[in-house]
Amino acid sequence: MMNKEITMLDVTLRDGSHSMRHAFTEQQVRDVARGLEKAGIPYFEVSHGDGLGGSSLQYGFSRVDELKLIAAAREESANSKISVLILPGIGTRKDLENAASAGANMVRVATHITEADVAKQHIELSRNLGLETVGFLMMAHMAPTSVLIEQAKKLESYGAEIVYMTDSAGALLPHEVTEKVTALRENISCKIGFHAHNNLSLAMANTIAAVEAGAEFVDGSLRCLGAGSGNTQTEVMAAVFSRLGYKTGVDLYSVMDAANDVVAKFMPRPQEITGSSLIMGYSGVYSSFLLFAQEAAERYGVDEREILVQLGQMQAVGGQEDLIFEVAQQIAKEQAMLVK
Amino acid sequence: MMNKEITMLDVTLRDGSHSMRHAFTEQQVRDVARGLEKAGIPYFEVSHGDGLGGSSLQYGFSRVDELKLIAAAREESANSKISVLILPGIGTRKDLENAASAGANMVRVATHITEADVAKQHIELSRNLGLETVGFLMMAHMAPTSVLIEQAKKLESYGAEIVYMTDSAGALLPHEVTEKVTALRENISCKIGFHAHNNLSLAMANTIAAVEAGAEFVDGSLRCLGAGSGNTQTEVMAAVFSRLGYKTGVDLYSVMDAANDVVAKFMPRPQEITGSSLIMGYSGVYSSFLLFAQEAAERYGVDEREILVQLGQMQAVGGQEDLIFEVAQQIAKEQAMLVK
Repeated sequence: MMNKEITMLDVTLRDGSHSMRHAFTEQQVRDVARGLEKAGIPYFEVSHGDGLGGSSLQYGFSRVDELKLIAAAREESANSKISVLILPGIGTRKDLENAASAGANMVRVATHITEADVAKQHIELSRNLGLETVGFLMMAHMAPTSVLIEQAKKLESYGAEIVYMTDSAGALLPHEVTEKVTALRENISCKIGFHAHNNLSLAMANTIAAVEAGAEFVDGSLRCLGAGSGNTQTEVMAAVFSRLGYKTGVDLYSVMDAANDVVAKFMPRPQEITGSSLIMGYSGVYSSFLLFAQEAAERYGVDEREILVQLGQMQAVGGQEDLIFEVAQQIAKEQAMLVK
Repeated sequence: MMNKEITMLDVTLRDGSHSMRHAFTEQQVRDVARGLEKAGIPYFEVSHGDGLGGSSLQYGFSRVDELKLIAAAREESANSKISVLILPGIGTRKDLENAASAGANMVRVATHITEADVAKQHIELSRNLGLETVGFLMMAHMAPTSVLIEQAKKLESYGAEIVYMTDSAGALLPHEVTEKVTALRENISCKIGFHAHNNLSLAMANTIAAVEAGAEFVDGSLRCLGAGSGNTQTEVMAAVFSRLGYKTGVDLYSVMDAANDVVAKFMPRPQEITGSSLIMGYSGVYSSFLLFAQEAAERYGVDEREILVQLGQMQAVGGQEDLIFEVAQQIAKEQAMLVK
């Protein structure tokens, strides 16, 4: 009989930053934080969508400085712990120290699934600052399980206390989550976390699969407020795990209130599964490819979805944006041949 | 090795009638039907949300007569077959005959999970009319698997060619779907279908579970347009089953176009998981209880969610609306005792 307890971590105030175009106000952050504290959510994350230091021309400027938002969230929460996200290369050592001073308890150091190496220094610094330290492997669908294990072991060796598998594109299927988390559970000894996106309408299912395979930390966002089609819906997750017999320590009605009386009132649009988010999940490409694909589709008169699906099959990664136009041109050529 | 083929049935133009408050226009029906036909959807359903004859003071009047809508859909579809839903007691023998004349190919005779008996005459009539005939068991979460099997066997004995298990309240969990469909597969010889609702964010997961346990027909709606939080999202289902290696015969990009360029343009609101739909799925009560629970909650100063959860535990069924006020009163009494 496994220990049927899980720890919920709400990412509304970080992943939701994408949907809010980084325009959270201090009042919104306070209201959400108060709601999560009342509901007994053990951890919630506050950061720019792209992590500490993300406020920039490239990733979008935050309306309110994130240190101010972290400090505000800290004031509203006596029991809930506050997590911050940091992507080495975007967030600096200084950002991490400032976040700790502002009241963060946990740092999640995020890298691409094959690049755990770059997390080493940040993980060590985080441990030195006395913060709970998480290694956060993004775009997990892009690497075979053997690579996932190798990268997770690195994070553990650097000092990560929890290793997250992150389905950034919402591209994983439940049986794949089961296989990957089972392998992690067999190969590392620290705790395992799982972060889902709902592009294929499988965020909740994948979260169950992860927990049944041994994950103990699970992410969600209120009303799914997050990038793409959003995350596992926090308040729904509380209900489903209660029905499945897991203890979360979260009060269902209070977390529903935070979702429906607070977040639903200010979210700019519902988190539906639209054309682009579905194709992201189906093809497994980066969201940053979408705009380029639209441009290339228009230039060459082809279907942008076809471009994205082919890029997914080629396992294109960030930085390969030129490839998008080559692929579009190639599709246009093939279509012209077919017409002849 | 199982035969990895499934048949998709789109219910946008029937279950979506609830979300549209039965106000589909003929043009909307034509546009959706044309999109589904183009996408190669083998079956789609056109009816009032509560089935043939549902247009009434009690269930809400349709803007356009459903026979006109069925005939319009028929004109737009050369290959897709048209299904109609009928609830004995609401739809009559005459309604069925008229639907067949208007161009319906399939009839789904729907009853509560414990009341297959009342489907006998309609199933026999449907067979006599030469229509493909389905028995459709609603609120499947309210009966143990043994009862589901007994009722499914009755439908089969009356002449149903396909038996559907219907999760009307979106209350089933994937392992429950697996258990129930596996039992059906072992005990009846006709084809099995599954119809999901997304109240617990598990419609897609439950549909996969049903197919893996032996279901061959699966329902969905474009952009989830359906009662409560809506159904399994048709276009997402096409993508997911393609990724899982199933043949559906449905063209992904065309079905996405029907969802995003047609349905998304006229749907009155997004199909989110809100407070009431989550509580419906969590408690497993009838949607018709919601308004009464709100009224009772106000009268006795208690949380409507608490009322619904208790009604769910009591397995209250339609017709027991008086019970709602008794439960509310009892909760108020207990709370008063706690305060003292």
